[in-house]
Amino acid sequence: MRSVSVGVIGTGWIGQDHIRRITERVVGARVVAVADIDPERAKQVASDVEARALPTGQDVIDAPEVDAVVVTSWGPTHAEYVLAAIAAGKHVFCEKPLATTAEDCLRIVEAEQVHGRRLVQVGFMRRYDAGYRQLKQVIDAGDIGTPLMMHCAHRNPTVPEGYHSAMAAQDTAIHEIDTVRWLLDDEIVSAQVLTPRSTSNKFEHLTDPQFMLFEMAGGARIDLEVFVNCQYGYDIRCETVGETGAVSLPDPAQVWLRDAGQVRTGVYQDWKDRFAEAFDVELAEWVRAVRDDALTGPSAWDGYAASVISDATVESLRTGGVVNTQLKDRPEFYGG
Amino acid sequence: MRSVSVGVIGTGWIGQDHIRRITERVVGARVVAVADIDPERAKQVASDVEARALPTGQDVIDAPEVDAVVVTSWGPTHAEYVLAAIAAGKHVFCEKPLATTAEDCLRIVEAEQVHGRRLVQVGFMRRYDAGYRQLKQVIDAGDIGTPLMMHCAHRNPTVPEGYHSAMAAQDTAIHEIDTVRWLLDDEIVSAQVLTPRSTSNKFEHLTDPQFMLFEMAGGARIDLEVFVNCQYGYDIRCETVGETGAVSLPDPAQVWLRDAGQVRTGVYQDWKDRFAEAFDVELAEWVRAVRDDALTGPSAWDGYAASVISDATVESLRTGGVVNTQLKDRPEFYGG
Amino acid sequence: MRSVSVGVIGTGWIGQDHIRRITERVVGARVVAVADIDPERAKQVASDVEARALPTGQDVIDAPEVDAVVVTSWGPTHAEYVLAAIAAGKHVFCEKPLATTAEDCLRIVEAEQVHGRRLVQVGFMRRYDAGYRQLKQVIDAGDIGTPLMMHCAHRNPTVPEGYHSAMAAQDTAIHEIDTVRWLLDDEIVSAQVLTPRSTSNKFEHLTDPQFMLFEMAGGARIDLEVFVNCQYGYDIRCETVGETGAVSLPDPAQVWLRDAGQVRTGVYQDWKDRFAEAFDVELAEWVRAVRDDALTGPSAWDGYAASVISDATVESLRTGGVVNTQLKDRPEFYGG
Amino acid sequence: MRSVSVGVIGTGWIGQDHIRRITERVVGARVVAVADIDPERAKQVASDVEARALPTGQDVIDAPEVDAVVVTSWGPTHAEYVLAAIAAGKHVFCEKPLATTAEDCLRIVEAEQVHGRRLVQVGFMRRYDAGYRQLKQVIDAGDIGTPLMMHCAHRNPTVPEGYHSAMAAQDTAIHEIDTVRWLLDDEIVSAQVLTPRSTSNKFEHLTDPQFMLFEMAGGARIDLEVFVNCQYGYDIRCETVGETGAVSLPDPAQVWLRDAGQVRTGVYQDWKDRFAEAFDVELAEWVRAVRDDALTGPSAWDGYAASVISDATVESLRTGGVVNTQLKDRPEFYGG
Ligand SMILES: [Mg+2]
Ligand SMILES: [Mg+2]
Ligand SMILES: [Mg+2]
Ligand SMILES: [Mg+2]
Repeated sequence: MRSVSVGVIGTGWIGQDHIRRITERVVGARVVAVADIDPERAKQVASDVEARALPTGQDVIDAPEVDAVVVTSWGPTHAEYVLAAIAAGKHVFCEKPLATTAEDCLRIVEAEQVHGRRLVQVGFMRRYDAGYRQLKQVIDAGDIGTPLMMHCAHRNPTVPEGYHSAMAAQDTAIHEIDTVRWLLDDEIVSAQVLTPRSTSNKFEHLTDPQFMLFEMAGGARIDLEVFVNCQYGYDIRCETVGETGAVSLPDPAQVWLRDAGQVRTGVYQDWKDRFAEAFDVELAEWVRAVRDDALTGPSAWDGYAASVISDATVESLRTGGVVNTQLKDRPEFYGG
Repeated sequence: MRSVSVGVIGTGWIGQDHIRRITERVVGARVVAVADIDPERAKQVASDVEARALPTGQDVIDAPEVDAVVVTSWGPTHAEYVLAAIAAGKHVFCEKPLATTAEDCLRIVEAEQVHGRRLVQVGFMRRYDAGYRQLKQVIDAGDIGTPLMMHCAHRNPTVPEGYHSAMAAQDTAIHEIDTVRWLLDDEIVSAQVLTPRSTSNKFEHLTDPQFMLFEMAGGARIDLEVFVNCQYGYDIRCETVGETGAVSLPDPAQVWLRDAGQVRTGVYQDWKDRFAEAFDVELAEWVRAVRDDALTGPSAWDGYAASVISDATVESLRTGGVVNTQLKDRPEFYGG
Repeated sequence: MRSVSVGVIGTGWIGQDHIRRITERVVGARVVAVADIDPERAKQVASDVEARALPTGQDVIDAPEVDAVVVTSWGPTHAEYVLAAIAAGKHVFCEKPLATTAEDCLRIVEAEQVHGRRLVQVGFMRRYDAGYRQLKQVIDAGDIGTPLMMHCAHRNPTVPEGYHSAMAAQDTAIHEIDTVRWLLDDEIVSAQVLTPRSTSNKFEHLTDPQFMLFEMAGGARIDLEVFVNCQYGYDIRCETVGETGAVSLPDPAQVWLRDAGQVRTGVYQDWKDRFAEAFDVELAEWVRAVRDDALTGPSAWDGYAASVISDATVESLRTGGVVNTQLKDRPEFYGG
Repeated sequence: MRSVSVGVIGTGWIGQDHIRRITERVVGARVVAVADIDPERAKQVASDVEARALPTGQDVIDAPEVDAVVVTSWGPTHAEYVLAAIAAGKHVFCEKPLATTAEDCLRIVEAEQVHGRRLVQVGFMRRYDAGYRQLKQVIDAGDIGTPLMMHCAHRNPTVPEGYHSAMAAQDTAIHEIDTVRWLLDDEIVSAQVLTPRSTSNKFEHLTDPQFMLFEMAGGARIDLEVFVNCQYGYDIRCETVGETGAVSLPDPAQVWLRDAGQVRTGVYQDWKDRFAEAFDVELAEWVRAVRDDALTGPSAWDGYAASVISDATVESLRTGGVVNTQLKDRPEFYGG
């Protein structure tokens, strides 16, 4: 069994986390080369895992010992590196977003089709969470009949000051945007944002919470509460209601404590803890798929669709109205 | 302690149920007179509880031995009987709706003010459910901070063929319309209905489920799934999300069974079972309040507001757009 | 429908509570006479409900207007009053214990048989709790197959200093002793008490918690944790394990709060709150049964059995060994 | 980071599973040599992972390329291989039981002390389960005060015909025997088995369920239901009750389905699924500890203690009485 040699572009928090993961948790892969805009940081990170630090991301892509690339650099650079990896004929795992504009996503989609085989996977890790996978299994088995509605919530305890209102769609809801499309195997055709009274526990500039509404091509309706300063924890909720039943994501299992007049259990404070196992499974399955040259994870098309729908959501936040999404026709290459 | 002698107008299912309740479950009250559009039915029901059967509802109101009136006749007759009871200076408990038009509700509101003391209570029984009362207590105590959103669901297993699409607002959502106003101590200022793909388990003419959106004067946003053919049970859900926490109505406690690879508990099939205790408490508290001439339950104003908001909801179902509600100014008489 | 006129002997806490219940919550009964060892207290309580205060319990039993008697006096006086009520041919509801010795219980059992119809009901209110009734229904329906084991816990937050170690069986476990016999429709044949390390949150003289083991005639085994200083709440647990499944008493439904990194719900602090509805149902059904002269609640035999088994449990607490219970043969009169 | 080369003795089901785990899930280790009593099976398994098949377990231990040994052969051979590994100065992970007699366990304990550093780890995987680890964390933090009782259940849906009554202690309860000692950081000083009515869903020769009672040196009392033909699933329960609170192992998180009048979630059918992650973590941490020559997992002493207590439990099953356990004094080497 050949080991996959991975090059990582971008060694900020998430880059370092993926490097640690590939090194300590994923069998059959190791990190051999890294680059970062901060060469000192790249050197430090590289030496920890006995990899080479290279001057640029392009150098990582070009390095002959690199079998596959992980892009965890700053969002605006994603498209360039993904396109370069495709040009080099190398598999590339790109953290969300695939690109910061729908146009760039489309260029990637087109480049990959020209290459003729899937090379790109986007980092939508929820598809690898055990609870979401069970949800999908129940839905696909027809156990709740045809899905008609989904009720979702995405809550963070707090966000840093740099977080602005459009990020509720771009950074936060984008996970549900992908999850919904995947769970229902259907496309989102419109988006709308309602703005409840904002919490006082936030920076002045921020509209929080936001209540988002999505409509699917097949007629199902999705609602999603995004509330990134809910104070109490990182809490992800998802109920799918079908013609004969409803199925819900469980809260993660933690011990139950009975004390002081209460029965209680913990809520995670951090998405990194909540989805730690999903990240592990995501990278392990990606490495296996790379080795078999048979990617099945979230595709460039999924990255493109998420980008278009996220743009529509942001536009609705500005206008208040329903914004129809304008996706290209899905190519056969992506199961269209 | 004087016993309250009650006259009941309308001896259909809910009328008979209230008569049984007053007779068997409520201390300090008894049914002394009944009337129904079907005199034979009235006679039968009356003889069961040793009451008099009278020819008309007006006769019940006029009967000198009747202290207070319960109106459980056909909806279009409610306004007439409630107004007559007010004219007679007698307390009147009216099943929802208070009247079938906002105008008639307003006439009642005005007549009661002319009388000078509250005489009218509307049958919104959820205010007497232990779970909802706990919800209100938590919200009022400030335990979740200022409320920002409520997520609700109202699901019935099935409905009879006579149920039509406007009834989703008029008969079903009307409970949440009242509950939300009461829980948040705030007024609904707009309503909108979205229509997800309809279930195939229904009559052709019916739009089901409906997804309703309400906005409060204070800025909180409410969403409500009404799904009256959900097949699996009568299921009421309500989560209120505030600035620092969220609080949810519990599922009713039933035993947990572990068998055949499952851990499971039952879901009620019928609103009459789900809210049986709430109905008992509602009538017991009403009788007590009548005796003390100090009504505190849902008022004629609440009946009027529910009517206006229900109308707006039905209009939105027709038009698809947001419909602003146009309530009169709340009189001081009703705590305005 | 004739109203049942009740005489109450003993107007301490539980007596007053039953008087309030009969007056305010139970239709078809009223309190007409009371007596107490403290005549001033009797007078006060009597005047609140427009009843007569009589000098002695025997006077209450003898009063011609008294249809049925409630005995809520000090335990050692129970037997005398119950026997007197039987002698007078009047129904008598006796709070636990039926008598403070098995011999006295047996005298009651014999007197009642001589009378020829059931007159005595013992206050084991758990048989009227909705959760326990569901448990019984599931067991009786065969949904878990033949019961093999029951795991129970009976926890109080604290007890007053007067509570001594034998009361763990006599006052606390006696509820489970009755419940188990009723749920399994089987007799307890031996008892044993194990003594875990005692909590430091208690008075010196007290052995707490106690872990009790019971064996049924049919071979099922029961274990019961009695822990009366558990600090955190009044918590009742019961799981019955059968050949094909297990069924558990649910925790009472209370709202769920998500805040401060927790998902939590409340635990009752007081048995009076936990079983408030059971007490209401108990007395309402007793009044109905008295009116119909057709008692079905916990019988004098159940009181006798509980007494014998409680004695055996106390003896085991002293000796540490297994103590076999020595019940008389159950007379046909009691379904033997 | 040097990779640990593992030799595996015994390639039955659990051996193959550990080989797969080391190969596919554990970073930093690979299987280089295997042996089995069936040489053909050994060859087959070896070729799957590109390891050598050697004639005997001793050959595996002696192979110079083998850094550490995993013993998954037939129980009666464990002691021999573990002693041989110690003699060779190699780390050895031994599936439970460490040996089939307490005497052999003691020989291992002594040999390891002679060697002077810990070499032996026993396969009690529950210490690596996330839920149990949380339990331990809560107990160690003092969040429930001093532990006084533990209520446990260990249920399997069914067992094969070869399973006999003593295996309830030796194979099944042995997990709780270790878990309890570890959670409470205390020693078991007596064991007793009570035998409820047996289920009819079993082979004639088997006593099932068994209800086990353990007493700790510190006075805490443990009860454990072992029920290996419970039909409905593989279900592990554990509640620890302390002076100020109680903490419970959660059921594993699975989606909640609302359909057909029920709210329900799944129960695992198989211990391999229930503890799959615990097995992964166990071997990953063992490999790391081997590399650092710093074992922290269940020790030879834990294997010895489990053996003595399991023997006492089996003896009580035979005699019915309380059997005191007779452990040697715990050497300082093992933290005594
Ligand atoms: Mg790796
Ligand atoms: Mg009444
Ligand atoms: Mg009464
Ligand atoms: Mg490995």
